[in-house]
Amino acid sequence: MLGSTHGTLTTDSRRARVIACGEQPGPAVHGRPADVDDLDVSGRPLYSTVPDLDRFFRPESVAVIGASDAEGRPNTGVTRQLVGWAERVGARLHPVHPTRASVFGIPCVASVADLPEQIDLAVLLVADPLPVIEQLAEAKVRFAVVFASGFAETGEAGAAAQARLAAAVEGSGIRLLGPNTNLNAFERFREDLTGPSIALITQSGHQGRPVFALQELGIRLSHWAPTGNEADLETSDFLSYFAERPEVGAIACYVEGLKDGRAFLLAADRAARRGVPVVAVKVGRTETGARTAASHTGKLTGADEVVDAAMRQYGVIRVDGLDELQDTAALLARARRPQADGVVVYSISGGTGAHAADLATAAGLRLPALSPAKQAELHQWIPEYLNVANPVDNGGHPVGDWRGRKIIDAILDDPGVGVLICPITGPFPPLSDRLVQDLVDAAEQTEKLVCVVWGSPVGTEPAYREVLLGSSRVATFRSLGNCVTAVRAHLEHHRFVSDYRSPFDQAPRTPSPSFRKAQLLMRPGQQLSEHAAKQLLRAYGIRVPREQLVTSAAAAVRAAALVGYPVVMKASGERIAHKTELGLVKIGLTSASQVRDAYRELTDIARYEGVSLDGVLVCQMVERGVEMVVGVTHDDLFGPTVTVGLGGVLVEVLRDAAVRVPPFGEEQARGMLAELRGRVLLDGVRGRPPADVDALVEVVLRVQRMALELGSDLAELDINPLVVLPFGQGAVALDALAVCR
Amino acid sequence: MLGSTHGTLTTDSRRARVIACGEQPGPAVHGRPADVDDLDVSGRPLYSTVPDLDRFFRPESVAVIGASDAEGRPNTGVTRQLVGWAERVGARLHPVHPTRASVFGIPCVASVADLPEQIDLAVLLVADPLPVIEQLAEAKVRFAVVFASGFAETGEAGAAAQARLAAAVEGSGIRLLGPNTNLNAFERFREDLTGPSIALITQSGHQGRPVFALQELGIRLSHWAPTGNEADLETSDFLSYFAERPEVGAIACYVEGLKDGRAFLLAADRAARRGVPVVAVKVGRTETGARTAASHTGKLTGADEVVDAAMRQYGVIRVDGLDELQDTAALLARARRPQADGVVVYSISGGTGAHAADLATAAGLRLPALSPAKQAELHQWIPEYLNVANPVDNGGHPVGDWRGRKIIDAILDDPGVGVLICPITGPFPPLSDRLVQDLVDAAEQTEKLVCVVWGSPVGTEPAYREVLLGSSRVATFRSLGNCVTAVRAHLEHHRFVSDYRSPFDQAPRTPSPSFRKAQLLMRPGQQLSEHAAKQLLRAYGIRVPREQLVTSAAAAVRAAALVGYPVVMKASGERIAHKTELGLVKIGLTSASQVRDAYRELTDIARYEGVSLDGVLVCQMVERGVEMVVGVTHDDLFGPTVTVGLGGVLVEVLRDAAVRVPPFGEEQARGMLAELRGRVLLDGVRGRPPADVDALVEVVLRVQRMALELGSDLAELDINPLVVLPFGQGAVALDALAVCR
Repeated sequence: MLGSTHGTLTTDSRRARVIACGEQPGPAVHGRPADVDDLDVSGRPLYSTVPDLDRFFRPESVAVIGASDAEGRPNTGVTRQLVGWAERVGARLHPVHPTRASVFGIPCVASVADLPEQIDLAVLLVADPLPVIEQLAEAKVRFAVVFASGFAETGEAGAAAQARLAAAVEGSGIRLLGPNTNLNAFERFREDLTGPSIALITQSGHQGRPVFALQELGIRLSHWAPTGNEADLETSDFLSYFAERPEVGAIACYVEGLKDGRAFLLAADRAARRGVPVVAVKVGRTETGARTAASHTGKLTGADEVVDAAMRQYGVIRVDGLDELQDTAALLARARRPQADGVVVYSISGGTGAHAADLATAAGLRLPALSPAKQAELHQWIPEYLNVANPVDNGGHPVGDWRGRKIIDAILDDPGVGVLICPITGPFPPLSDRLVQDLVDAAEQTEKLVCVVWGSPVGTEPAYREVLLGSSRVATFRSLGNCVTAVRAHLEHHRFVSDYRSPFDQAPRTPSPSFRKAQLLMRPGQQLSEHAAKQLLRAYGIRVPREQLVTSAAAAVRAAALVGYPVVMKASGERIAHKTELGLVKIGLTSASQVRDAYRELTDIARYEGVSLDGVLVCQMVERGVEMVVGVTHDDLFGPTVTVGLGGVLVEVLRDAAVRVPPFGEEQARGMLAELRGRVLLDGVRGRPPADVDALVEVVLRVQRMALELGSDLAELDINPLVVLPFGQGAVALDALAVCR
Repeated sequence: MLGSTHGTLTTDSRRARVIACGEQPGPAVHGRPADVDDLDVSGRPLYSTVPDLDRFFRPESVAVIGASDAEGRPNTGVTRQLVGWAERVGARLHPVHPTRASVFGIPCVASVADLPEQIDLAVLLVADPLPVIEQLAEAKVRFAVVFASGFAETGEAGAAAQARLAAAVEGSGIRLLGPNTNLNAFERFREDLTGPSIALITQSGHQGRPVFALQELGIRLSHWAPTGNEADLETSDFLSYFAERPEVGAIACYVEGLKDGRAFLLAADRAARRGVPVVAVKVGRTETGARTAASHTGKLTGADEVVDAAMRQYGVIRVDGLDELQDTAALLARARRPQADGVVVYSISGGTGAHAADLATAAGLRLPALSPAKQAELHQWIPEYLNVANPVDNGGHPVGDWRGRKIIDAILDDPGVGVLICPITGPFPPLSDRLVQDLVDAAEQTEKLVCVVWGSPVGTEPAYREVLLGSSRVATFRSLGNCVTAVRAHLEHHRFVSDYRSPFDQAPRTPSPSFRKAQLLMRPGQQLSEHAAKQLLRAYGIRVPREQLVTSAAAAVRAAALVGYPVVMKASGERIAHKTELGLVKIGLTSASQVRDAYRELTDIARYEGVSLDGVLVCQMVERGVEMVVGVTHDDLFGPTVTVGLGGVLVEVLRDAAVRVPPFGEEQARGMLAELRGRVLLDGVRGRPPADVDALVEVVLRVQRMALELGSDLAELDINPLVVLPFGQGAVALDALAVCR
């Protein structure tokens, strides 16, 4: 059964699994040497290793186990393709078959033991790969690819067979791709295309097909890793490897599920450090999608909002459709670093310009108005009555002559402009042919990004197929929607990587002094009482109201005097939920007699409701502020996660909350607040003072620390409400629920 | 200056503008004869007239004013195109030019007065159309098209020139298209395509170009109305006309702004009654888009959320991109009435199926699991280990032989299945060619909808270009996103029209008895006091707390006794906002002495704050319920609108509100509540009782009645809060703000 290797944490640190053959430690990044033994306080690795897959993609020697050239045999076509591929990459290919003397004229050996040389890559075309894997391990083969299906994707029995395969590989020195994979890694890639490439990772061969086909539109593809069931090599391994390849401009992924959440984060972190954009389709927006994907490759899909957050934390650009995957990856692979984030829409029609400006702005692009001087310059060539502020409407005619190029150059010359988007809704050759040629020529002369939306649904027009697709400098789209999606991703990617600081560099490695105090409070298998849960918070420096737990009315009165009037009194016990609804909370008590009465009433209600108490809490009454919720839950894929949301009706009704996967830094904690729909409450609305956001951020970070140190021993934590007081006055946890594993 | 003809209402009913030549009253619909003189209580028309545009699109005689065949003259190309078009539609064409004897071999006349016969359509290629229009009116020409630009799109002077043009046309008997329009109506449409067509309306020629190009993909287009500046004929006229044409299967619109909101609603109502789908791109999602669009054609864009609501009220399908406009209109034009709303995803790859199912479900499509019997049937041809519940994964091989067609037929044969979606991510001719042919053949034999997503970005493959595009029964898409958008629109359209009841049939025609009472309360140009505003509500049967307005402490005490303790006391005056913040509200007063003190305090604060009071309100204290906001505002385009939202923090912070354009019925009022993000508050959360939603709906409808009857005399109404009590107990307006015009 596959599971999240690092998702389940205990406070006994687990060591990272032994790294198999051919791996190299992560390179020095940001001046810090990586060390594969680095673990954080939760026992999870802080740095990924990059498997050396050079000999996988460019082997010197290949063995094909089960090779065939017999007419009508399924293996024959596969063998033929592998023979052609080996020739192209310059590898010696050795067919292995028990009875044949040769396959496609190449001498055959009877078994793995008979192979004449050290083999880099063995491709297994046999139905039962397990025995062969054992022979390959003995023969010290580096890589094996298993095509056979019928493993984890078929149910429990298949999952068990896959586990045996994984066990045979583990520690053997072999790295294995598959099972349930295919020939995609050995396709015929176009060699004539130059410039930065797309590297492709897919968990389904069919889903990568349209990205592969981009080569027919002139987009270079350098690698394709079809990871199949990921018994050993997984998406993250290829992600790390591709992030280190100099020719790779962008990595495109089609992901159904992940084998190991932490490994994915570390690989994404590597790509982010190196500034390599990763664009991903991740199935699992809906329950239907998640269930179907799980049955397809037997992997975990994780809670979608957690996957979404994790991807955003590491700058992975998530898109929905394969068309967006293609268009976004192609743009990010080839576009240079933007020189400005201003976008200009340029069109031969006012209507087209208005529409494009509307959608671009709605997508979050910034369309600055051009300066009066620039507008005057454009009006040399464009009639005065046309709008050239941005969008720039040229009215059509100027593109038919020498003025067309002048206009484009003048726009691109504006220092505030980083991107030019020119939507061409239909071919009108007298104008559009010249416009297209001018855009292609101008793009050759600038570092800036020139995008064309070829709006005709036909797509056989020479201006599109020959001129636009013939340019490696113009980014051509077939829909405005995909263009603005890709441009936004491009600008956001560069903003993200320029600000990026890896959270793994700052992640805690050793327990804080709080940890020892916290351990003493944990009660395995139990829900802590409110009082104990608050002590846990206090151990991590999170403020709670002054309070005392008392077991008599007289003690309550003494406690109230110490805590200070007015006080709040609450029943306290291990399993009390919905205290307020049950009448187990009394607020605003201002005298000893009220305290005495409240004590009696609370214990009466508890007795009536059959609730067992460990006492009654007498608490300081806290002034009003913004009520928030901060919590910890566990995700199947990523382990503990931290959530912050607006409290009260907003979290109950609207689930207005943001989530992050640890480790994360202060910027991400602030980013969580920015995501909340009700965030303006923190700024102060209708005359209320702004809340102490710094204190709130500090609580979120302390809760993260607690989640990392206590790991899965802390099954659930819910501070509700955390009252965030006005600026400078801090935040107080009024109530908390903690469940120990 | 163009404006909203019907958007500005007064209680003096305005008569609908005189209907010009060639119009026919609306046909009998839903058994009710239409009457062009029908006006609602706001003085706005209840039924649209359909201009008879037959002779515009198929004239018998055409005059071209300013015709030319001189080399290099811009009018020459236009004339040539018109000559060709006239030949195709069988019209006699008469060139008009002061000096030429003939144009393209056709005898020319010197002026309009010299035209040899009654002219159906005159096309004006002259820079100054105004004098010609006057001559055309004398000659009793039916239709004129003005190409000249430089009118409302250029600013104030142009708008004035356009107004003169409109005035010249009004009452003349001529209907005018333009100015600032073009030749799009006279394009060469493919005559060989059959089946229901798309009729196209655009306010920009370029923006219609991709829809026109759909003909090259086999989609029939029958009409194109490029409405330009809409000095006379507007989008709504063509919408009404196309909705009545039997050959039209769907109407596609590109709209930048509307000339008259009411006319648009009536035209959309006509299409909804007749079940003709309308798909529209409407620019104005953002401020940038709205501003640019306004400068392009000089029309009003309206508040976007109001436009959005108005479109939804009448089933107009709003899309963002031109690609979605094409794909959705093409599907809706050709697809038959769905026999079930179940969607099955069918694919040769488990990954593709999972991804498609995920996106389809996320888009709101229903993917029912196929019955065990149906799954068993499919497993005759599909290996047992593959998932065929839905999505149906055939694993590839079965599509290569006779089994492929069996599978498709078996799926389509399921009575719960209305739509089959088959995504084909890339061409693999041994499988995909046969799959495509089977889908095309199966689609010929079924009433059900068969959709194919051809995922290859290349698009030159014969299976796509020849087989799929050659089928009029298969709906072919290039992206999964556009496919699910179109399928959802298709299913929603049929659901909408089958439930549709025109709100105009139920709209009030005569003032209610409330109206006379309300009129007495109105104070032109003033904001009413809270007390007066509540009397206005009471006039319309909306419950307000028992209350008395008093001007002395002694009177306050007497009032409290009548109203009943506990009471609330509030300062009342014409211009008091933010009463609570100023301390001008006292709640929970339980004794005469408290009332006396409160009176003194309120008047002291008012004096200190310089607020002039008309007295102090002594009000019944209402029990707690769900706080809502109900209001009326005015939209530039659509006149009064009614808004309902969650009160308190939800409306302040999240603007959680829904809007409708009157007239609307109870179903729409309930639909408003369904749109609210915080709607579960009305159902009762955390043990609170469900709220009296019926009473809330009744208040919304009474507010609508008030908005219609008082028209623009009521500039603004804001009931905040309206407390909705538990089920069966009604709703009470605790406070209200009313501003008279």
